[in-house]
Amino acid sequence: MSITGKILINGQWVKGADSEFNAANPATGASSAEKFSNADLAQVDEAVTLASAAFDTFSQYSDKQKATLLRTIAEELEAIRPAIVERGTWETALPEMRINGELGRTIGQLNMFATLLEKGDWKRPVIDLAQPDRQPLAKPDLRLTQVPLGPVVVFSASNFPLAFSVAGGDTASALAAGCPVIVKTHGAHPGTSELVAGAILRAIETCGAPKAIFAMLHGSGRIIGTALVKHPKVKAVGFTGSIAGGRALYDVAVSRPEPIPFFGELGSTNPVYLLAKSLEDTAEQIAESFLGSLMMGVGQFCTSPGMLIAVKGPAFDRLVATLAEKAPVLGAGSMLTAGICASYNKLCAERDALPSLKAIAKGTAGDSAASQAQVALFSVDATDYLANQDLEEEVFGPSTLVIACNDEAQMLEVAASMKGHLTGAIFAEEADQAAAAKLLPILQQRIGRVLFNGYGTGVELSSAMSHGGPYPSSSASQTTSVGTRAIERFTRPLCYQNTPDALLPVELKNANPNGIMRLVNDQWSDKAIG
Amino acid sequence: MSITGKILINGQWVKGADSEFNAANPATGASSAEKFSNADLAQVDEAVTLASAAFDTFSQYSDKQKATLLRTIAEELEAIRPAIVERGTWETALPEMRINGELGRTIGQLNMFATLLEKGDWKRPVIDLAQPDRQPLAKPDLRLTQVPLGPVVVFSASNFPLAFSVAGGDTASALAAGCPVIVKTHGAHPGTSELVAGAILRAIETCGAPKAIFAMLHGSGRIIGTALVKHPKVKAVGFTGSIAGGRALYDVAVSRPEPIPFFGELGSTNPVYLLAKSLEDTAEQIAESFLGSLMMGVGQFCTSPGMLIAVKGPAFDRLVATLAEKAPVLGAGSMLTAGICASYNKLCAERDALPSLKAIAKGTAGDSAASQAQVALFSVDATDYLANQDLEEEVFGPSTLVIACNDEAQMLEVAASMKGHLTGAIFAEEADQAAAAKLLPILQQRIGRVLFNGYGTGVELSSAMSHGGPYPSSSASQTTSVGTRAIERFTRPLCYQNTPDALLPVELKNANPNGIMRLVNDQWSDKAIG
Repeated sequence: MSITGKILINGQWVKGADSEFNAANPATGASSAEKFSNADLAQVDEAVTLASAAFDTFSQYSDKQKATLLRTIAEELEAIRPAIVERGTWETALPEMRINGELGRTIGQLNMFATLLEKGDWKRPVIDLAQPDRQPLAKPDLRLTQVPLGPVVVFSASNFPLAFSVAGGDTASALAAGCPVIVKTHGAHPGTSELVAGAILRAIETCGAPKAIFAMLHGSGRIIGTALVKHPKVKAVGFTGSIAGGRALYDVAVSRPEPIPFFGELGSTNPVYLLAKSLEDTAEQIAESFLGSLMMGVGQFCTSPGMLIAVKGPAFDRLVATLAEKAPVLGAGSMLTAGICASYNKLCAERDALPSLKAIAKGTAGDSAASQAQVALFSVDATDYLANQDLEEEVFGPSTLVIACNDEAQMLEVAASMKGHLTGAIFAEEADQAAAAKLLPILQQRIGRVLFNGYGTGVELSSAMSHGGPYPSSSASQTTSVGTRAIERFTRPLCYQNTPDALLPVELKNANPNGIMRLVNDQWSDKAIG
Repeated sequence: MSITGKILINGQWVKGADSEFNAANPATGASSAEKFSNADLAQVDEAVTLASAAFDTFSQYSDKQKATLLRTIAEELEAIRPAIVERGTWETALPEMRINGELGRTIGQLNMFATLLEKGDWKRPVIDLAQPDRQPLAKPDLRLTQVPLGPVVVFSASNFPLAFSVAGGDTASALAAGCPVIVKTHGAHPGTSELVAGAILRAIETCGAPKAIFAMLHGSGRIIGTALVKHPKVKAVGFTGSIAGGRALYDVAVSRPEPIPFFGELGSTNPVYLLAKSLEDTAEQIAESFLGSLMMGVGQFCTSPGMLIAVKGPAFDRLVATLAEKAPVLGAGSMLTAGICASYNKLCAERDALPSLKAIAKGTAGDSAASQAQVALFSVDATDYLANQDLEEEVFGPSTLVIACNDEAQMLEVAASMKGHLTGAIFAEEADQAAAAKLLPILQQRIGRVLFNGYGTGVELSSAMSHGGPYPSSSASQTTSVGTRAIERFTRPLCYQNTPDALLPVELKNANPNGIMRLVNDQWSDKAIG
């Protein structure tokens, strides 16, 4: 499929009126044949203004209409799978199997929200019936539902060119909620972005939806990104990326005359706690499975395990010995961009220079011209770790810090010293449950997803998933960016009081035509009223 | 009951280490016999640090334990009803019946959250069972619940000395969630605050709860309020008050190294739309019921109707004539403080001076020494209204602007020009439903509660209530400060993956011991698993 390098506004491919750039293959350093054009500020205003006008129509779409749109986008993506995989692997250096899998995940997300919409109870309908005879005052009829916020700006991620990018989870959940979406692409995969945006546009055309409910703009985060977040008609932002970039845009969102929610999934180091019996019995297996998780996507998962915490002793020594034995033969891998690779190497060099850190092992040295990074494992004494809070910060890439504790009490102290993380893992056997019970309340205050005997790198699409956590892992720790509940980010409650049945939205009507579960007079019911 | 003027930290009444002040009776100008002492910054730090330490215990409280605490607070308040009513009326100039009713509401809120906790399903438990045989990868067991955020600062409101103050909705919902509360009192009713705080303390002692889960501090919003919001161990803020004051504290909350949610219920003018047939049939009745709603609490309700919008014509003239006839005989009433009254009179004088506004009527002139305000009704042509956006702003007190539209299209234009409001009312008969159907999608984007044939001044305690709305009516439009769902503001999701049943919280255990409704594999079920 041919790539035009254009941006998409109101269903039209147009040349961005600002500067141009080429895509790059990080594994070869090659530049793309095509030039991509960045939007200027007038085009930002045009895209948002038209999206806001389209919201008047789109906000009234039924759940069924939105479900059809999402399923059609999924079909259009499947129809161009070979082109997406070819371009995606070229732009990101991620292996074909990974891009194929990530496209499957992206399609799965769209269909997951379609299924949620078809089920029809996602707006959490609540009905409290009138009590006209209540004394001293009659109780009115009250009915609660959720309504969409308005145009949403979505910032694509570098590390998931499909699942957290143009048609990724933020876009799928915002469209499912009834919000138009303006995507600010990531410069690391503009051609992939264009292909995906084309699929969305064809679905919009097929479904006859307002064309301005989706726009795709190339441009710098600092200029175009800031302008999008500042625009008065934008009502929410979805973001996946670094703490520095995310915080800068968060600050813009909350400084507006009308502040708006900023759903930023930022950085996380994802501590892994190894409890005594589990370590004793499986030190070698943990070392191997850990390296496998760490190397997924060359350590570029937001849930990549960046800290291993255990108590010193013979089992701990076996763990470190196995890491030291297995890591050096791990091959280097190309990172997503030359800049990300350079940043990773710089952070590893800084850790190399810290006197309190010991290098456990490094992987095979990579080809720097191919932006290749190697695994880098360090260890630190818990006492030194507790004295240097910077060590908690994420090193984006395949590096991990092993924290050696004197005893269980110091392990709990390390846990209690931490800020927010997306995931926290505990390796525990039955004999470790008492220790786990002490660790859990500490993690409860700091972690978005607690998991046992595994790593956080697989983030299921599920109604029970939460992908988020206390700051800085998320700028909106009360929400999730993965799973069905992600849709709630783009809605707010609306209460109807004494409203004629004919004017109520379908989920609140007496007849309950879709037979959905509702809270009626504080009792769950899927029946009609009256 | 004797008033000490002290502040409450860790279950101890201590003298605030900063300046002192007297309470005032706004109706007489009299000063209280007692002196009240303001907390200093060291006391702020002490209260928050101890609350944070107490959170480790309190966050593990069962729903039943928290319910007992809330019910005991309610009982302790009921036990000192005469003292609260006496002091409350003296400090606020609100009539005894109102303070009695508001105390009933406050007790009702505490018991409402206790009932919610006893029901046990408020954490929205979701369970997706493992699929060990799924290809290519096994699906893990995932279980989702909500956990409390940590210490919450609650700012008392001037206009609801009980229901939105020390033991008000924010405190009740935060404690219900499992969060310690530090109350920053409002200077307009410090004695009432002390009585209420004493009731809370006695309940904490009776229940054997950690004493530091509740503190009460007097002090200035600018100094003590800012220090509380800035404190790193504070994790959320509840606020009811003015846009200016709320926005200043919001800015502090979001500028912290770790930003925290700021649940601010700010200003609202609560437009009332009168549709043609309803106006035609009931112009006189609407005028009378409207004045009744406007005069509730001397117009000092956040849901007070500050705008009446209708289409010009004979029925509109009858409405205005009735207002002009009935308003002048309405008696003046003392406002909550001399400062609030002065501000109201200043804003009314500014409106008097605007050439585009016509005065419809004023109520009986009041005694300015008694901080008495009179009703002030103005009218404006919709064309002039649309040209002057400042007219949308709240005038805190019994003033209303009647907006005269040329036709239905202009009424829709006025509706579409507005920002966020807590409530929006529509007066409509069956023949008005087509017009209402055009108005509703516009209000959907701007209003927290839409109501028919009534006013927003009654805010029911109900699971279907939403009290909030787009900015500036709320700084957190995705939440409500009234009704059971207010508890969700002080929690965040936590996902458990592959967690041993023995370590799961009760709402996620296989046995479902409390028989609560859960979403299991995307189906609603109140049964046990397996």
